[in-house]
Amino acid sequence: MASASSATPDTLHAWQTLKHHADTLQHVHLKTLFGTEPSRWESFTRQVAGLTLDLSKQRWDDDTLEHLFTLASEAGVPSAIESLLSGKRVNVSENRPALHTALRLPADATLEVEGEDIVAAVHESLGQMERLVRRLHAGQWRGATGKPIRHVVNLGVGGSDLGPLMVTHALADFRPKGIHPVEVHFASTMDGSQLADYLSRLNPETTIFVLSSKSFTTIDTLSNANTAREWLLGRLAQHGATPISAELVIRQHFIGVSASPDKMSEWGITPEHQLTFWEWVGGRYSLWGTIGLPIALVVGMDNFREFLAGAHAMDRHFSEAPMEDNLPVLLGLAGIWNVNFLDIRAHSILPYDGRLEYFAAYLEQLEMESNGKSVTRQGQPVNYSTCPVLWGQLGPNAQHAFYQLLHQGTQPVVCDFIAPLKRYDEVEDPDTRRHLKTQHRLALANCFAQSRVLMLGDDAIDDDGPRPEHKRYRGNQPSTTVLLDQLTPATLGSLIALYEHKVFVQAVIWDINPFDQWGVELGKQIATDTQKIIDHQGDLSRMDASSRGLIEAFWAAEQES
Amino acid sequence: MASASSATPDTLHAWQTLKHHADTLQHVHLKTLFGTEPSRWESFTRQVAGLTLDLSKQRWDDDTLEHLFTLASEAGVPSAIESLLSGKRVNVSENRPALHTALRLPADATLEVEGEDIVAAVHESLGQMERLVRRLHAGQWRGATGKPIRHVVNLGVGGSDLGPLMVTHALADFRPKGIHPVEVHFASTMDGSQLADYLSRLNPETTIFVLSSKSFTTIDTLSNANTAREWLLGRLAQHGATPISAELVIRQHFIGVSASPDKMSEWGITPEHQLTFWEWVGGRYSLWGTIGLPIALVVGMDNFREFLAGAHAMDRHFSEAPMEDNLPVLLGLAGIWNVNFLDIRAHSILPYDGRLEYFAAYLEQLEMESNGKSVTRQGQPVNYSTCPVLWGQLGPNAQHAFYQLLHQGTQPVVCDFIAPLKRYDEVEDPDTRRHLKTQHRLALANCFAQSRVLMLGDDAIDDDGPRPEHKRYRGNQPSTTVLLDQLTPATLGSLIALYEHKVFVQAVIWDINPFDQWGVELGKQIATDTQKIIDHQGDLSRMDASSRGLIEAFWAAEQES
Repeated sequence: MASASSATPDTLHAWQTLKHHADTLQHVHLKTLFGTEPSRWESFTRQVAGLTLDLSKQRWDDDTLEHLFTLASEAGVPSAIESLLSGKRVNVSENRPALHTALRLPADATLEVEGEDIVAAVHESLGQMERLVRRLHAGQWRGATGKPIRHVVNLGVGGSDLGPLMVTHALADFRPKGIHPVEVHFASTMDGSQLADYLSRLNPETTIFVLSSKSFTTIDTLSNANTAREWLLGRLAQHGATPISAELVIRQHFIGVSASPDKMSEWGITPEHQLTFWEWVGGRYSLWGTIGLPIALVVGMDNFREFLAGAHAMDRHFSEAPMEDNLPVLLGLAGIWNVNFLDIRAHSILPYDGRLEYFAAYLEQLEMESNGKSVTRQGQPVNYSTCPVLWGQLGPNAQHAFYQLLHQGTQPVVCDFIAPLKRYDEVEDPDTRRHLKTQHRLALANCFAQSRVLMLGDDAIDDDGPRPEHKRYRGNQPSTTVLLDQLTPATLGSLIALYEHKVFVQAVIWDINPFDQWGVELGKQIATDTQKIIDHQGDLSRMDASSRGLIEAFWAAEQES
Repeated sequence: MASASSATPDTLHAWQTLKHHADTLQHVHLKTLFGTEPSRWESFTRQVAGLTLDLSKQRWDDDTLEHLFTLASEAGVPSAIESLLSGKRVNVSENRPALHTALRLPADATLEVEGEDIVAAVHESLGQMERLVRRLHAGQWRGATGKPIRHVVNLGVGGSDLGPLMVTHALADFRPKGIHPVEVHFASTMDGSQLADYLSRLNPETTIFVLSSKSFTTIDTLSNANTAREWLLGRLAQHGATPISAELVIRQHFIGVSASPDKMSEWGITPEHQLTFWEWVGGRYSLWGTIGLPIALVVGMDNFREFLAGAHAMDRHFSEAPMEDNLPVLLGLAGIWNVNFLDIRAHSILPYDGRLEYFAAYLEQLEMESNGKSVTRQGQPVNYSTCPVLWGQLGPNAQHAFYQLLHQGTQPVVCDFIAPLKRYDEVEDPDTRRHLKTQHRLALANCFAQSRVLMLGDDAIDDDGPRPEHKRYRGNQPSTTVLLDQLTPATLGSLIALYEHKVFVQAVIWDINPFDQWGVELGKQIATDTQKIIDHQGDLSRMDASSRGLIEAFWAAEQES
């Protein structure tokens, strides 16, 4: 990930060229670009691994792209890709590699990292996960009272929650047939809301909990785990005539997933029910391994391996394709162009498929936690924008919510439209299939229409006679469209890997480290201090006036109870 | 809502004063403001209707606020409030009032609008809703085969979905005891995803659908409704020995909620199962009336009336309190200061209570659809920022997702922290209560700690010795904290009304109309045209190159099926 020079990107020649170029292009409307370049679809669209990436509606032209490729070269993108995939210590502040791509290498690959072949270890770990999954799917995992487990509650937050939640929701149609039914649930919030809801509904005899935490010190997850443990012990210990030991309850009702087996053992997770992974897998990149257990429980191991294969196809493409045809590079450069040269600081993610309901929330973490940085890898503060604010919602729903701002607001926003081309082929009842396929076409028509209107504004209609100003549309909001041939484990794997690598390309150009997250550490520390004060074990008087007021308001409320 | 002058706000004297003032204050760090003004909590905190609003962590001082009050006066905020609440035609582009506040007037109030007392009509409408709710809660609503209804699926999108979804989730603990159990579900996406899932799980004999659409022409909702109708007819018509008529099925399994009774009748909704409302209620402000049916089904009518009373308490405060103590005015002015004078164009909504999971999505519509505008009420394009980009997530989860960007990214963001002071008092089991109360304190400690770190940066810790640049925190990100005494129907009503009125105050100052949404019309029209082309009934050749490419990709995929 070494830059070609240690200069910050804004001092590179290509950056300056792009600045000048942007001064000109800034005033050219997207519709003009489409008017003068009839072959934009061919020029700016690429296909790979079941995905079609249409970048023709970005506010750029061939020259822009050429300058951006030069910038990428000057910033050392090609060698950085090689460093990432070969296991160099690209995570400089933590002095370790970032090897999520190794989690999806096929069994017959080899990757030697600092003298060790890690592919065998990865597949050994997948094998362990597979054994747990098969046991649950065979109805052979029994709770402390002897009943087969029916419910699995994943306790995790951030990377131990968002990825599994997003993927299990997206691939719910891929449940294997003929297995013992196991329902998967997610509880993440530290305030206990979601967990309290499950505890009121689930049967402790047939429920297990997965404690997912890379460090196994995440207080959100551990506090949910403690509440769950109390609940199980309270309900199961006095169950029936023979008392059931706490050891048995904890052994049979908890699985741990962590990079810290010691801490799992300390908590009480039995070694046979521990799944491990490695320090070189970042939390937000961890769904490809044992943190993906809930995914494998929903879709089965065969589909999980398809999911890995899809991501691996994108990894190979990322490694092998020239920059001109490299989807993650192209997507990354579009982002650089928008935020650094067109000053578009907001980015909206808009899937036109209800199964991708959590995709925007997933990307919010992936992008903003990776690239929400302002210090170069050499420790210099940056003086250019890095990650924009990302947010999103299912596109059709957002049409009835915040598209008003996209079309007629004052903030420039770039949008990613995401949709599957084919859908509902597997619905058995022909009438229902016909209706649902009509709904799919409707969703696609809306997807295509919205990016068109964002681009053209009023020019999207022919009869553009005089109309009052409040009915006018400026257009000129850029967008990307990503089409999936269909939504399958493999194409979803490719899609996620596309965005992971896009994030990496941008980090290389911004010269920041996308694999650490020092910005969340201080909050954890201050929260611990604050809780001590709230619990009357700390000194309130040293706090600022607002914190004092807030804590005193809590104390006053507590007195009323 | 008439401005004191027809000048745009940026030409007002106070706007210019604020510009100069901002030039100075821009360079003052929030921690400095706290250091020099020890009474900021007292100066910038207000309480009303079960809410505490702490604005002390905004990057402003007493002078700022004074200038902002002058701006509000010059822009005519006080008289605009009066116009809104008294039913003047504040929605100028549609030439009608915006009377959502009338939906929560008590029965003994009077409000004469254009010669008619509308309070009686509002309460008549609530009475109709109550009769439907009671029938369902008594188990007296029976499906076409004679079984009592157990599941209600709300088909609606935007305002007919987000409000009811958000509130039913927030108030799920307030389900009345001892009623016939009725579960409420929501299907909104036009692609049929959510609906397909319900159809595979629910029993048609005991399921009814609520079609919620102000215009009753929303294609998203009508296409879901058609799929639901086919499903019911297919499953129920040949049920048992005696054939069941389509009329009976449609009569017993559909409720309509709309401002257009004619269109409901046309679709086949029987008049007794129609709930109506008025053109003067905007979609995103409609949860207070019959669109709130799912809320009343979950919490019961008594709690629904508490919810209205909470909002009404905020309305009275908004109407009566001087600007200096007026919560919606203060919250609105903070937003104006941030986006127009400090150029902070992103706003994050961060509730520290899992029950408020959908609150950010709700506000995204409320704020961005209302104020994502760029034309004054007189039809002039604006040359200042209006609504910022709003997004959010449960705060504790966002700590593990995008807080990295808030703490160490390059984008300025203002945050709203929202939390209840008291919680879990009603949990019966003492051990579980103790654990959950600990989790609540943990959540509050995190909430208070995060706004502190965003404000102070590194100065939040004492031992701030030398540390590498990537472990440093600039701080100086402003925030607001809203505390609820506890989360109840009444305080949630106040909270929503607070934000509704905040949006209004900002619209008055920006001189835009928050009650129309012309920006979503063109997309609908172009989507219809696009669908015709997709269905081979339109002319592809007149499309732009990108739209052509996308449609041809769909056709190619269709051929493969």
